Amino acid sequence: MAAPYELIYYAGVPGRGEHVRLILEEAGAPYQDTQFLSFDEARQRVTTWLAGGGHGNPRYFAPPLLKHGDLVISQTPNILLYLGSRLGLAGEQEDDVYRVNALALTALDGLSNEVHDAHHPIAVMLPYADQREESRRRSKEWVQSRLPSHLAYWQKVLVENEERGSGPWLLGSTFTYADLVLFQCLDGTHYAFPKAMRQARDTGKYDRVFKLWEDVKARPNIAAYLASSRRQKYQDWGVYRHYDDNDVIAE
Amino acid sequence: MAAPYELIYYAGVPGRGEHVRLILEEAGAPYQDTQFLSFDEARQRVTTWLAGGGHGNPRYFAPPLLKHGDLVISQTPNILLYLGSRLGLAGEQEDDVYRVNALALTALDGLSNEVHDAHHPIAVMLPYADQREESRRRSKEWVQSRLPSHLAYWQKVLVENEERGSGPWLLGSTFTYADLVLFQCLDGTHYAFPKAMRQARDTGKYDRVFKLWEDVKARPNIAAYLASSRRQKYQDWGVYRHYDDNDVIAE
Repeated sequence: MAAPYELIYYAGVPGRGEHVRLILEEAGAPYQDTQFLSFDEARQRVTTWLAGGGHGNPRYFAPPLLKHGDLVISQTPNILLYLGSRLGLAGEQEDDVYRVNALALTALDGLSNEVHDAHHPIAVMLPYADQREESRRRSKEWVQSRLPSHLAYWQKVLVENEERGSGPWLLGSTFTYADLVLFQCLDGTHYAFPKAMRQARDTGKYDRVFKLWEDVKARPNIAAYLASSRRQKYQDWGVYRHYDDNDVIAE
Repeated sequence: MAAPYELIYYAGVPGRGEHVRLILEEAGAPYQDTQFLSFDEARQRVTTWLAGGGHGNPRYFAPPLLKHGDLVISQTPNILLYLGSRLGLAGEQEDDVYRVNALALTALDGLSNEVHDAHHPIAVMLPYADQREESRRRSKEWVQSRLPSHLAYWQKVLVENEERGSGPWLLGSTFTYADLVLFQCLDGTHYAFPKAMRQARDTGKYDRVFKLWEDVKARPNIAAYLASSRRQKYQDWGVYRHYDDNDVIAE
């Protein structure tokens, strides 16, 4: 399809839409982005498109949405799956698309959804202030047991590739959108939990993981994007938030 | 591939593996299932395969896993995506696979992951008893605001199809694995929150959603499966758990 890619998401924070931006930026694919609208206009656009895009597209529950011609789809990993195949970032071997999708889903589960829930453990509809104590308790537990578990998992994936003489990416020698997803997840987790991430880095146990973060950041298209005004700043709303109360280290 | 499908998951509860069983059962596809091993043997099998399946399959973080010949993949929605295309349950129109994947991801987010987190709001590594108060608070909030939000969403999808002269399934006239996923999510949520689900049903506001639950249950292959010993019972471990403390209704 020659139609433009259109990202429909809230304006003002990187959020879940950021994964979509990163894959489009890496591929150098032109796209439209509601982040350039006002906050209210972007929100209105999201609401309109959530009600379904006609042409047999069912109503969707939450943004980000991707519009491409008559197709309107939701769910971050689903949008990445669609774009990954089209943009040559979903692997090269038969069935790699499923390996890459699994890696992306795992990164989003562990280092995006779990991090989000650290500031909203009781209810996503209630403000943080109404669940501050629970949020602190959850953050302490998360930094203590889950963060090391996730980092150790990604380290093993990368080390095992290296032992097979492959790497430096998650799928081996082939860069895929799973690398972009893990980069953004690490970057956002670092914003939310800088002390714990520094502590983890200093152990030296996750050096391949932190190297991947740097390697993605240094890719020419990504570096140019991150330096541009298109890269929005993290704020204290959205998926990744920094609260001093939660910025703890493991014991 | 003529290789058999092999589901690798814990034995003893339906869990996330149940979504994989339902799609295979609906399609009448033969499969092997570690649920027939002892509890310890199944757990051992899971651990072994999580370390990667060779042949370029990276290590994975959590079960269920699907093995099909040399391919080993993780992540429930990813396994369904793979099987859905092969078994003719991912729609008929171009790009339907992405519409179906979005619907399945939305059902799993809202009526599986959120329900799981109701009994583990603070930490998945801590026992329920250590987060019982928070669990009760989260359950009350969830039943009050999120359950109606999810049911209203699914009702709208189904009503809008009907208004277009289509239905009775989520994608319209074509039955897909998204219907199976929503069925299992409703069924498990009913196990966890029977009072709230009965209350929701009695309002009459979600009649299309509860009808879909019944319609899926009545499909010949699914009915036969649910009546068989292959359908495991819910227990108070796993994704869906019933705790009296959490079995509340909306105010």
